[in-house]
Amino acid sequence: MAKPKLTPLGDRVVVKPEPGEEMTRSGIVLPDTAKEKPQEGTVVAVGFGRILDNGQKVPVEVKVGDKIIYSKYGGSEVKIDNEEYIILQERDILAVKA
Amino acid sequence: MAKPKLTPLGDRVVVKPEPGEEMTRSGIVLPDTAKEKPQEGTVVAVGFGRILDNGQKVPVEVKVGDKIIYSKYGGSEVKIDNEEYIILQERDILAVKA
Amino acid sequence: MAKPKLTPLGDRVVVKPEPGEEMTRSGIVLPDTAKEKPQEGTVVAVGFGRILDNGQKVPVEVKVGDKIIYSKYGGSEVKIDNEEYIILQERDILAVKA
Amino acid sequence: MAKPKLTPLGDRVVVKPEPGEEMTRSGIVLPDTAKEKPQEGTVVAVGFGRILDNGQKVPVEVKVGDKIIYSKYGGSEVKIDNEEYIILQERDILAVKA
Amino acid sequence: MAKPKLTPLGDRVVVKPEPGEEMTRSGIVLPDTAKEKPQEGTVVAVGFGRILDNGQKVPVEVKVGDKIIYSKYGGSEVKIDNEEYIILQERDILAVKA
Amino acid sequence: MAKPKLTPLGDRVVVKPEPGEEMTRSGIVLPDTAKEKPQEGTVVAVGFGRILDNGQKVPVEVKVGDKIIYSKYGGSEVKIDNEEYIILQERDILAVKA
Amino acid sequence: MAKPKLTPLGDRVVVKPEPGEEMTRSGIVLPDTAKEKPQEGTVVAVGFGRILDNGQKVPVEVKVGDKIIYSKYGGSEVKIDNEEYIILQERDILAVKA
Repeated sequence: MAKPKLTPLGDRVVVKPEPGEEMTRSGIVLPDTAKEKPQEGTVVAVGFGRILDNGQKVPVEVKVGDKIIYSKYGGSEVKIDNEEYIILQERDILAVKA
Repeated sequence: MAKPKLTPLGDRVVVKPEPGEEMTRSGIVLPDTAKEKPQEGTVVAVGFGRILDNGQKVPVEVKVGDKIIYSKYGGSEVKIDNEEYIILQERDILAVKA
Repeated sequence: MAKPKLTPLGDRVVVKPEPGEEMTRSGIVLPDTAKEKPQEGTVVAVGFGRILDNGQKVPVEVKVGDKIIYSKYGGSEVKIDNEEYIILQERDILAVKA
Repeated sequence: MAKPKLTPLGDRVVVKPEPGEEMTRSGIVLPDTAKEKPQEGTVVAVGFGRILDNGQKVPVEVKVGDKIIYSKYGGSEVKIDNEEYIILQERDILAVKA
Repeated sequence: MAKPKLTPLGDRVVVKPEPGEEMTRSGIVLPDTAKEKPQEGTVVAVGFGRILDNGQKVPVEVKVGDKIIYSKYGGSEVKIDNEEYIILQERDILAVKA
Repeated sequence: MAKPKLTPLGDRVVVKPEPGEEMTRSGIVLPDTAKEKPQEGTVVAVGFGRILDNGQKVPVEVKVGDKIIYSKYGGSEVKIDNEEYIILQERDILAVKA
Repeated sequence: MAKPKLTPLGDRVVVKPEPGEEMTRSGIVLPDTAKEKPQEGTVVAVGFGRILDNGQKVPVEVKVGDKIIYSKYGGSEVKIDNEEYIILQERDILAVKA
């Protein structure tokens, strides 16, 4: 998987979503209920962060290569070289798989 | 119950929800009325906290192992190694059972 | 009435609601009109307070034992040892009976 | 009219609403149109004020005994010793009759 | 026109609305279209201002006697000594006629 | 075109809208599609600016005489000496034609 | 493609949208699904930035000539010399193609 040539703005990240089979292999299954169902993916690009009201920069908490769980109700889909990616804001990231 | 391999972001926590029998054993019964009905669970992972507008970090008020009561109208369900967990933001936690 | 074993988070309080007879005895009757109808209760546990944007802690204005009037449109019901309690945020508390 | 035994929280005030006849006597008549119709009353208790984001306390602009005009779309009704009162937030107070 | 005996709170002002004939005399006609239609009036009382998050007081930009144009979608009507007035917040004032 | 005798409050500006023919002359045509369609006009009066939470004044970015493009979903129409004007807030101004 | 004679206000940018063929050439295809579908374009003008609550200026993260991906649910269309442009706020820009 080639890294897409995108630099996300602010606290955004570019994520390569995992296909359903990957989720089983890692032992994490995301249930299909009425509650919010997060998705899994791998971070491939990270923005420079967000700026607080006092002017201080806060870097994004995740880094390239991190496997993350993110809210499916956020982000924008882009297709680069026939691969699908999601551009998320940091608030849409729920957890990192450590 | 193994600790899930997840590090929640910001002020999020990962919670193992208690089954209904546990609630009776602890003497707390959550009524099934029209009012908001909170849930019980055990904290299994805690994010690093939130950042104030002045750049100061505020750690999450709960720690791993805490029994908590949380709003059922928050959080995202994930299933890890066939166990269900909830990822909550701190504001969805109502109280710690001391 | 035993104090419930709950520590509310942030500026939340745990309140034991007064039954209707108590309200008459104290001379306060809460009318049943279209306007917002507050409730009466006794504070049984208090959170550590809220944190301002400058990092300063603001303690909750009420203390354990205070008789309060609170908005009925807030809070979550919990039942502990067969007694019903409400977990409120400070903003849902209207007044203390002095 | 006895002062009710209530200490309102934050920037709230307890107000004794004026009956309709009082309004005529003071020369102020509140019209019954589609526009917002304010009410008249007398302040009988005042909270300690609100706290700014910098931690500074701002006292309420009105004091006990002030005749005020307040928005009818705010506040909660309570009945104390068979007298009706309204608990308002300061933002619901429009003006003081000087 | 006697000044009404009202001191508005915060950044509110008391305004005597101009009747329709006055508008023609001043050369300003407020059209009756679907767009927001402002009204004309004269300021008769001004509150002490608003308080910023840093505790600094900001006085209201208009003064007693100013002819103003204000949004008709704001304010509360009061009738004092059979004259109608509007109590507005400063944000509802669009411009001063200089 | 005489300058209207209006001083807008805060970060508001008074704008003389351009008729449709003017837009063609300047080479800018505003399309009539489902997307938001901005309008063109000339600034004829500018307010003193807005005040930040730290008390600092921020002047308006445009000046009298500037040709601007502004959102048609903002502002209030006034008619002065039979000429129509729009009173806008700075956030409704999209760009200045340099 | 001539640069349009527009200076956007605040953190706005003027963008020349890419036609559909350009997207294929760069290897990025924006899928037509129910999820939010971003657009591609080239920055042709950049505002001076936004002002934080502490008075500090934050320049826009993109510069003239940058190829960007932006949310299609933002911005205003303008037509200059028969070319269509979009005026966006920085928050509508998702990423820069590096």
